[in-house]
Amino acid sequence: MARPSPLSGFPELLPAQRVVEQQVVDSLRRTFELHGFAGIETRAVEPMDQLLRKGETSKEVYVLRRLQEAEEGTGSGAGSGVGLGLHFDLTVPFARYVLENAGKLEFPFRRYQIQKVWRGERPQEGRYREFTQADIDVVGRDTLPFHHDVEVARVMVDALSRLDVLPPFRLQVNNRKLIQGFYTALGAADTAEVMRRVDKLDKLPPEEVHRLLVAETGLDEAQADRCLALAGIRSNDDSFVEQVHALGLEHPLLTEGLDELAALVRACAPLAGDRVAIEADLSIARGLDYYTGTVFETRLQGHESLGSICSGGRYDALATDGRTTYPGVGISFGLSRVLVPLLARGDLAADRSVPSAVLVALADEDARPAADEVADRLRARDIPTEVAASPQRFGKQIRYAERRGIPYVWFPGPDGTHEVKDIRSGSQVGADPGSWTPPVEDLHPRVVPTVPAPAPEAAPLTTAPTPEEHP
Amino acid sequence: MARPSPLSGFPELLPAQRVVEQQVVDSLRRTFELHGFAGIETRAVEPMDQLLRKGETSKEVYVLRRLQEAEEGTGSGAGSGVGLGLHFDLTVPFARYVLENAGKLEFPFRRYQIQKVWRGERPQEGRYREFTQADIDVVGRDTLPFHHDVEVARVMVDALSRLDVLPPFRLQVNNRKLIQGFYTALGAADTAEVMRRVDKLDKLPPEEVHRLLVAETGLDEAQADRCLALAGIRSNDDSFVEQVHALGLEHPLLTEGLDELAALVRACAPLAGDRVAIEADLSIARGLDYYTGTVFETRLQGHESLGSICSGGRYDALATDGRTTYPGVGISFGLSRVLVPLLARGDLAADRSVPSAVLVALADEDARPAADEVADRLRARDIPTEVAASPQRFGKQIRYAERRGIPYVWFPGPDGTHEVKDIRSGSQVGADPGSWTPPVEDLHPRVVPTVPAPAPEAAPLTTAPTPEEHP
Repeated sequence: MARPSPLSGFPELLPAQRVVEQQVVDSLRRTFELHGFAGIETRAVEPMDQLLRKGETSKEVYVLRRLQEAEEGTGSGAGSGVGLGLHFDLTVPFARYVLENAGKLEFPFRRYQIQKVWRGERPQEGRYREFTQADIDVVGRDTLPFHHDVEVARVMVDALSRLDVLPPFRLQVNNRKLIQGFYTALGAADTAEVMRRVDKLDKLPPEEVHRLLVAETGLDEAQADRCLALAGIRSNDDSFVEQVHALGLEHPLLTEGLDELAALVRACAPLAGDRVAIEADLSIARGLDYYTGTVFETRLQGHESLGSICSGGRYDALATDGRTTYPGVGISFGLSRVLVPLLARGDLAADRSVPSAVLVALADEDARPAADEVADRLRARDIPTEVAASPQRFGKQIRYAERRGIPYVWFPGPDGTHEVKDIRSGSQVGADPGSWTPPVEDLHPRVVPTVPAPAPEAAPLTTAPTPEEHP
Repeated sequence: MARPSPLSGFPELLPAQRVVEQQVVDSLRRTFELHGFAGIETRAVEPMDQLLRKGETSKEVYVLRRLQEAEEGTGSGAGSGVGLGLHFDLTVPFARYVLENAGKLEFPFRRYQIQKVWRGERPQEGRYREFTQADIDVVGRDTLPFHHDVEVARVMVDALSRLDVLPPFRLQVNNRKLIQGFYTALGAADTAEVMRRVDKLDKLPPEEVHRLLVAETGLDEAQADRCLALAGIRSNDDSFVEQVHALGLEHPLLTEGLDELAALVRACAPLAGDRVAIEADLSIARGLDYYTGTVFETRLQGHESLGSICSGGRYDALATDGRTTYPGVGISFGLSRVLVPLLARGDLAADRSVPSAVLVALADEDARPAADEVADRLRARDIPTEVAASPQRFGKQIRYAERRGIPYVWFPGPDGTHEVKDIRSGSQVGADPGSWTPPVEDLHPRVVPTVPAPAPEAAPLTTAPTPEEHP
């Protein structure tokens, strides 16, 4: 087998990079669980008819076929695996899981799910064919009070705040009711058509969007002006409410949307800080039709070109079996989308490529049982330890530890005396394998940003937002 | 969407079952890392030509196709995803990863990998189309000393020993050199053919295997007798060496195999205990051709019908790029294969379906901000907490906690006084959200075996082994 090349769109990590990803996953999981969210996993495959319900992504589905099927010449048959595809998000499988297990779940059901998803897209920067998402959702049976919208926002803000090795985040929130009520009050014939034009503001200049609104949605110049004025509103507190009122339109749905968005921003504001900024941004709409209230997007400061890396919202019908409807609200964090570019650029790294905090040195091969015993005594006290692979000169064994980033080398002594060397400082002291413990920060690999943050292109948290690219 | 049904062969877990799986994964990972094994993940897909190198599993591969490809009418093309299949184990992808990244890895490279794999098999009990494996391997460049065989055995014994909610394990070891040297000394023309017949001992009676040996491999009656005598040898210590010598054959390869196997059994014996038994079993051969020395199988006591749930061995050429060869030794633990049947039968369960240790009760909806603050203060001290979804009567809120298995309900008082109730004992005491802490065993869901172990069909650890079923 010749040396294989990487597959485009299927990123893989080296051991020290995987340490970073694993620590991010662990941190997310810990936060989600602190908030009472239960972890589940769903199978990687769903029936094709379920995957094709969301029209816009249907072309990105990977379809499965058993190799045997082709050889058998059969194309269908129960249980043959025909009609299965890999899931392209975690929402479709979760909706199916809720319906399938509704009788065994307690509602409201809070779940997190951190799994790989697959999309057969043409690979491009920041887009992958296999990537990991971390989703949280709360799902109710029949009804789901609005305070759960606030809850998922607060949980995700808490989770992102704890990812302190990553650049800061900016969570942008809006509300579909607010937009729809405003457009209705404005007299728009088709509010969805207006929304679709306004949603192009991240790609087109305002004048062009204005022209489209007039040419294609039947709005007059003044109405189009007000649409753009609404989309231009953003604030870090609930002052956006007054700005909207100043545009002089009234509608019950607009009022409901304003109330909800103001409540959300007020409830999240105390959690905002250096790590996460929260902002009402009335240009955010999210392309997907199923959102019915709150919508979320999130930018990584200094990496706005990645687009929204954490998005979601309220859907009044996540799932329905005809008799019962399950409303939900959730956010999906694009773990690979954030991490893979940072790791590829070397912006983030772990300070060692192995879990070992200690390498037990080996004078000769006969000393291996004694070295194993030292290692076992250290492991019994939760100190990750490996024994030297071969009894080379001690200088070589120290360099072996250095190459892996292992901070300590242990030298078992001839008569039960032991010494341990911190190879960073060079200091070497007597030590007892039954009691010696390294400083807690040396126990596990540490993740360190390798460039000063904020990156050069980062906008300061307090200024007006920079232009963004939507996915 | 009508209520969906489960897909045969793709097991999914309810939240409380997932707790068990997650704790097993966490425990395995912790042990592997204590021994210095680095965690990696590989992509789910490999080029089909790689997957088809192992002839015997080729029919089980799931082949991928982008839906778009069919619509475009193209069947090939660079980057189109044609020629990809889902991996059916973690060894093929790991070998490819080692070759692809050889220049960036430090050897010997110790890695663990806990991931899903897919096989398009006809579903049957204990066989799945999607399942999780936990693999450890040590890989060297050019050479890999024998002590790494001992190392992976010790690591897996340590890992299995710590899975104390599972039934006990019995690790059975043998050595291909031993068998091959013995058959060669015996005068067998084709040792592989003899091995294949003897490997049928778990499915056929000894007389029938004896008949096959004589009829199909050219051995005479006395030679076949000695083959069966060798396969009948097993011991918990190195006394098997004498039993083999008593069969009166000599060969350098036999001697080397005996020395290796004896060293392995002696080195692992101190780690054996109530949870894991270790045994030299000279009938173990493993079907796969690439093993060249040590071979491992493992039975779950009382669940021998599951076959070997943790298998592996030494392969002198895990991977090669023509110039450099990478020998390896590893073991693969069939996580789903063990857990899914136990969970399905209800033999194992978690004592709650949510991570929450505390439910903060709600007197009315206006009290939500105060309840959120209590919850945040508890979470700040790593106590998983949820706030009641709605301000029902307190009796209803307590039953809500009971249904989820949440042990504590917190009642925020009117004037900053708080009380917390242990709903299992009914005792309710004053508490401060800044300092109250539950007993550590209540912090996270606990996994409990729900039936007394050993199960009725379990053989005591110290007696002769029961007949086994190989996969």
